[in-house]
Amino acid sequence: MPKQMHLSAFSHHASSSQSFGQWKDPRNTMARGYLDPEYWVNVAKTCERGCFDTIFLADAPGAKDIYGGNHRMTAKAGMQFPGNDPTFLPPVLARETEHLGFIVTFATGYFPPFHAARVFSTLDHMTGGRIGWNIVTGYMKAALRNGMAAEMPHDERYDRADEYMEVVYKLWEQSWCDDAIVLDIDTSTYADPDKVRRIDHRGRYFSVQGPHHSEPSPQRTPLLAQAGGSARGVAFAATHAELVFIIATSIADAARSTKALREAATKAGRIGPSIKVLPEISWVVAETEQKAKAKYEQYLETADVDGVLALLGGHTDTDFAGFDPKATLKGQSSKGITTVAKVFEGIEGAGEWSFAELCDYLKLGYTSPTFVGTPDQIADTMEAWMDGADLDGFILAPVRAPGDLEEFVDMVAPVLQKRGRLRTAYEGTTLRENVNGHARLAPDHPGSRYKAGSGTFGV
Amino acid sequence: MPKQMHLSAFSHHASSSQSFGQWKDPRNTMARGYLDPEYWVNVAKTCERGCFDTIFLADAPGAKDIYGGNHRMTAKAGMQFPGNDPTFLPPVLARETEHLGFIVTFATGYFPPFHAARVFSTLDHMTGGRIGWNIVTGYMKAALRNGMAAEMPHDERYDRADEYMEVVYKLWEQSWCDDAIVLDIDTSTYADPDKVRRIDHRGRYFSVQGPHHSEPSPQRTPLLAQAGGSARGVAFAATHAELVFIIATSIADAARSTKALREAATKAGRIGPSIKVLPEISWVVAETEQKAKAKYEQYLETADVDGVLALLGGHTDTDFAGFDPKATLKGQSSKGITTVAKVFEGIEGAGEWSFAELCDYLKLGYTSPTFVGTPDQIADTMEAWMDGADLDGFILAPVRAPGDLEEFVDMVAPVLQKRGRLRTAYEGTTLRENVNGHARLAPDHPGSRYKAGSGTFGV
Repeated sequence: MPKQMHLSAFSHHASSSQSFGQWKDPRNTMARGYLDPEYWVNVAKTCERGCFDTIFLADAPGAKDIYGGNHRMTAKAGMQFPGNDPTFLPPVLARETEHLGFIVTFATGYFPPFHAARVFSTLDHMTGGRIGWNIVTGYMKAALRNGMAAEMPHDERYDRADEYMEVVYKLWEQSWCDDAIVLDIDTSTYADPDKVRRIDHRGRYFSVQGPHHSEPSPQRTPLLAQAGGSARGVAFAATHAELVFIIATSIADAARSTKALREAATKAGRIGPSIKVLPEISWVVAETEQKAKAKYEQYLETADVDGVLALLGGHTDTDFAGFDPKATLKGQSSKGITTVAKVFEGIEGAGEWSFAELCDYLKLGYTSPTFVGTPDQIADTMEAWMDGADLDGFILAPVRAPGDLEEFVDMVAPVLQKRGRLRTAYEGTTLRENVNGHARLAPDHPGSRYKAGSGTFGV
Repeated sequence: MPKQMHLSAFSHHASSSQSFGQWKDPRNTMARGYLDPEYWVNVAKTCERGCFDTIFLADAPGAKDIYGGNHRMTAKAGMQFPGNDPTFLPPVLARETEHLGFIVTFATGYFPPFHAARVFSTLDHMTGGRIGWNIVTGYMKAALRNGMAAEMPHDERYDRADEYMEVVYKLWEQSWCDDAIVLDIDTSTYADPDKVRRIDHRGRYFSVQGPHHSEPSPQRTPLLAQAGGSARGVAFAATHAELVFIIATSIADAARSTKALREAATKAGRIGPSIKVLPEISWVVAETEQKAKAKYEQYLETADVDGVLALLGGHTDTDFAGFDPKATLKGQSSKGITTVAKVFEGIEGAGEWSFAELCDYLKLGYTSPTFVGTPDQIADTMEAWMDGADLDGFILAPVRAPGDLEEFVDMVAPVLQKRGRLRTAYEGTTLRENVNGHARLAPDHPGSRYKAGSGTFGV
């Protein structure tokens, strides 16, 4: 039996997410609707109708300000800016859905681990066990300039993040026994003090006493997601992540990433396939191929390439304002172009692309590929990627929101379901149960060694 | 015409708030219901039925661990522990109410100001302008041991908090012009870059570039609340707060605090009466005085005095385990007792109280007084406090939740309304409009000097 796909919608809690300029079309209601919880309720209900595992809420606190040396283009293009904090959406959306999960981005670089643990326990309680954490280290330049953290070398951020995870595992898994709440009226005991313990963590970066402030939540540890692309990032993801978001421009490219991740996971003592690997894609779907192509052209026309360059500049720390459109990627010496070229090495001939051609590729789904066609054609392509690259599903970034998401659910999802590649009903009640069948962290996960279980440990 | 009262319910997002041991009565559903958003929806709807201005959500991240030198009694009594992060409640509750505001506690000591500004802008957008911020500096011992912040002398915390406020005013009021979002399709302009500016704050404690990440929200600056009792705390409140939560044990005591606050506000260049001053109270109400007294006795019996001492120990940094119940407050040399004695100096003869008598007083509403009687008697007492101490309303801490809150709304609120002391309908649509009639910070508020208005400022 072919593997079923895990699907996740992708968005920022902002004026736009991965496609810019689309606010000019009135059907892209996200551009102003992002401020209204009702917009998000509709998105969540749409995702649940499509039997998605989750909505993946990205975040980056600070307007990108590399393009032209300031934030002007970011503001002009409404490029992921203005934007609000995404962690406040899940409690609202959980009340309007029954099964859908919510993965929110939260940076280890910006908040103490005690706070992170409490935030995710609160969210896990309020969503009935449907919360996930997209672990990022943070340290985006704009965020540093906003006083969110002090600078730190890239690899050290991950060393620090490894210890950070140790602290939060101890808080989530070790601090409270499962049966600590006893409500014993005779002895006037709400929680048995022998079943609530300090963690007394003392490490290189953190000293945290505990006990954890929240009682055990349905999942205890939230579903852990990650998207690190660097070698150190892959090692981190292979150790901690249960779901990994990858950027891949072709099946071969995706296959390389998946293989590297599963091998690194095995090296880290985990079972390779226990990590769910999902590349980001965009799509343009219509009843006929011709209509889909016409729509695609329309989308390209609406796109704001300067918005793309403001984002690309932020990600690669390169100012693309006034860049020569005829220059090819090959032979460029700037750090930014090298980074970009790396992203496209999966596409044959991309090394010869001019800068203008690169911009065309990035116009709709940013670094992710855009599948264009009929529902059957898009399902075909998704199946080819799944099977050709040992994937577990997809992160779906709509070009126009919420329209493209609604079309995916109404047109493509039924095809995938008919082919047995997408669930028709949810298996579990928590996010982790739906993603990997486990109620708590799987036994091969490093956080599992901290599990307290029932029993007594004294202070 | 007599002044109308502003009312606010008080709670922690936890197993208990100001009364401990009441979980033993099954009608106190908060003890386990706190985990269920539905519990809070009922509380919010009850408050709105009573035309309250707001729910005041207190918070302290870390189990008190002074009593006996550890957290055991805090856990055993379920004393504000376990507890979740309160900032996640307002977006849920705003969808189930139309007018009620939500004041959440957030510590300047634990989070960067850029983050604070974004959190409150997000909450203001999601609640349609019904969010307030209870500004605390933090630095509770248990929180420090949990790595939430580094130690800092008391008065310096307020100096730092003053600069913190300057940063967030700049982000909320100065960074975006009112008319920055232009959506001009012809020039492909989402936000006019000439109307979104950096703040470039460089001070003693903070360097924050901006621009603010969120676009202007209905209130811009959330309603600012504070509860500082120290001399430096009063100066801070008089400068920044629009609503002040005070602890007072008698009318004379409340009158002293109110006078001091209004005088300090005038000194800070504000209009004294523009600060709303609300003391915390608890109550036990029944149809007859006799029934109210019997209920009061029942509440006292259910109370857990050890829970009170775990809290008092945390607040005064004094271990009260094994304290002599016959000792009087007077002449005690420990810092804790001096602090406690200060709280009770408003009650005649309290200096002669034994420790056991003190504990009796604290059993139900902690440091706030408990009014016991019929709806008319409680309304009488509230009126006497209002008029005798130049107050603006009350912070209402129910002993048993939600029952006492429901009884207040069903039995006492109608009496106050009949007497013209409580609104029968909301005047405004935002929290600030309901509290002081202003849509934005009042002209006498120091944050007002940063207001950007409409116009253009360049980068």
